[in-house]
Amino acid sequence: MIVDGREYRSVWWEHGRLRMIDQNRIPHDFTIMDFSDHLQVAEAIRNMNVRGAPAIGAAGAFGLALAAKNAPDERFRSHIRKAHDLLLATRPTAVDLQSGVNYVYERTIKFIPDLAHARKVALLAAKEFANRSAEDCRLIGEQGLHLIPDGARILTHCNAGALATVDWGTALAVIRLAHRKGRDIFVYVSETRPRHQGSKITAWELEQEGIPHAIIPDSASGYYFWKKEIDLVMTGADRVCLNGDIANKIGTYDKAVLAKYHGIPFYIAAPLSTFDFACRQGTEIPIEFRDEEEIKLYGGQITANPGSPVLNPGFDITPAELIQGIITPKGVFAAAEAAQKVQG
Amino acid sequence: MIVDGREYRSVWWEHGRLRMIDQNRIPHDFTIMDFSDHLQVAEAIRNMNVRGAPAIGAAGAFGLALAAKNAPDERFRSHIRKAHDLLLATRPTAVDLQSGVNYVYERTIKFIPDLAHARKVALLAAKEFANRSAEDCRLIGEQGLHLIPDGARILTHCNAGALATVDWGTALAVIRLAHRKGRDIFVYVSETRPRHQGSKITAWELEQEGIPHAIIPDSASGYYFWKKEIDLVMTGADRVCLNGDIANKIGTYDKAVLAKYHGIPFYIAAPLSTFDFACRQGTEIPIEFRDEEEIKLYGGQITANPGSPVLNPGFDITPAELIQGIITPKGVFAAAEAAQKVQG
Repeated sequence: MIVDGREYRSVWWEHGRLRMIDQNRIPHDFTIMDFSDHLQVAEAIRNMNVRGAPAIGAAGAFGLALAAKNAPDERFRSHIRKAHDLLLATRPTAVDLQSGVNYVYERTIKFIPDLAHARKVALLAAKEFANRSAEDCRLIGEQGLHLIPDGARILTHCNAGALATVDWGTALAVIRLAHRKGRDIFVYVSETRPRHQGSKITAWELEQEGIPHAIIPDSASGYYFWKKEIDLVMTGADRVCLNGDIANKIGTYDKAVLAKYHGIPFYIAAPLSTFDFACRQGTEIPIEFRDEEEIKLYGGQITANPGSPVLNPGFDITPAELIQGIITPKGVFAAAEAAQKVQG
Repeated sequence: MIVDGREYRSVWWEHGRLRMIDQNRIPHDFTIMDFSDHLQVAEAIRNMNVRGAPAIGAAGAFGLALAAKNAPDERFRSHIRKAHDLLLATRPTAVDLQSGVNYVYERTIKFIPDLAHARKVALLAAKEFANRSAEDCRLIGEQGLHLIPDGARILTHCNAGALATVDWGTALAVIRLAHRKGRDIFVYVSETRPRHQGSKITAWELEQEGIPHAIIPDSASGYYFWKKEIDLVMTGADRVCLNGDIANKIGTYDKAVLAKYHGIPFYIAAPLSTFDFACRQGTEIPIEFRDEEEIKLYGGQITANPGSPVLNPGFDITPAELIQGIITPKGVFAAAEAAQKVQG
């Protein structure tokens, strides 16, 4: 992605350390965070300085490479095993995090007891995982391009953009490419309470790219369906199951039901790392419940009655039958067949 | 409603002036505002110190009575005509405002040129309008009670409570009465961005009344439908048309579609003043678009990318076919028949 005329990734290795764009400071400031330790990486994932399933996956991969770099020789294996478990525990819903951490872990432990080599392999594996992730997203854009006709009015939710991935984005890779190819498109960006990833991050990315768009409250998408002003819905996913059910940011399911009711196609864009071949169906996916402070306070001001309990699920499940197609680096597939197709 | 052990209305006349609970300060503070002038009342409606269709209707009625009280003898008619127009222009979507202002206006001008009597009639008419409005809501609770079975898990949106009306509430009148009758109920309260009337006001009312509830983000209602943890939906309305279409807070339509898709009943509770017999169908209702600052800033903090446009519709239309029944002071009716039944 381009920021201030320079090409950036959201997560990258530079001068012997991990660097990430601080997503909690977008759109206020463009700040780069440096990491020399996997504990800091775990904290950044937990605190959502890095968010978006593929970006978290790359952060986790580099996090484990840092753990290998810093592990004392005498307890190398237990140190990286602990780091592995700690990193996986930071966000339970996204499978990319498991993919990224395990990708590095499995390659690294093969080279024990040659620890110098194991450390080198850990970093190479993390870089390879991140590069593949970026290339996956570039291909998603190409595969999905034909789904966005000239004049399309697109609804997206949360941030499935370059910041959420290593580069390009998932849903936004397709949208970005359609715009670069000269198609006249308009994007409705739903705010995405409680953390405003739509209104803060997706809107910022679209503005950087010059793509016409407007922010709407999460509750307003129904109104624009009713007005027949939405032609298609495209979002990312945090996990895709074998049967085509997906998990994504809370509110995705609402939009999928609205799309179905209005006869509008609903597409998911997902890189290979988002497929969970161990997950048969959506009901098996753990849903992360986040802190009630996210709903109760903003900028030091009360946004809810202090004495009331809050339920704050971070994700929901959209069943395969509501999904018109899953856009992957290998092609666009019917949801129920996608897992099989991307493996083949 | 009871607040701190004392009985309150949201809008009332006391010691020669209009008094209202400042709803912008709930739940932080419980503050009473005093009004001696219709311009202040118009400002309070615009600024949403008073909100909720029936409460606005009563505020408008008393606002016109204040205009009559203050009108100079030599331009009585033009003064109250201007006040009438100004008050109606403050919020275009709610028909109650028209009902309340016109109720007082029509009775007042009959007594020109006996201005002393006209002024007296204006105040009596405003009080009568407010009393009828409160009684309407009490009856809504009784009429709707049988729709809430023991054990019901109810989703509501925005604030259809005592604060939104003169007293009792509309949807919350039914919920309040079910709780007082000892039924074991649980209420999901959706946050209601951008002004948080659900999380701030409805949650506060439910806490005052001791009714079990939880606040959820607007986007999370789909998740709880999917989990089969919602048994019915009950909201208020800002306007009911002849054909049974209704206007209500943005996000109501989304929940009606979700309810339909899951086979869950969706009820609207509305006093007589909310019926607009001049409106044939929902597409005729003007939708108020509110300021983009509501989406962009909170507590002095940025909640959206500053360079992005915002679309902030305040209301949406829910068509009659999605509504299981409209709860009125005269009974619960099929949406398509409700306007005819309440007139009969």
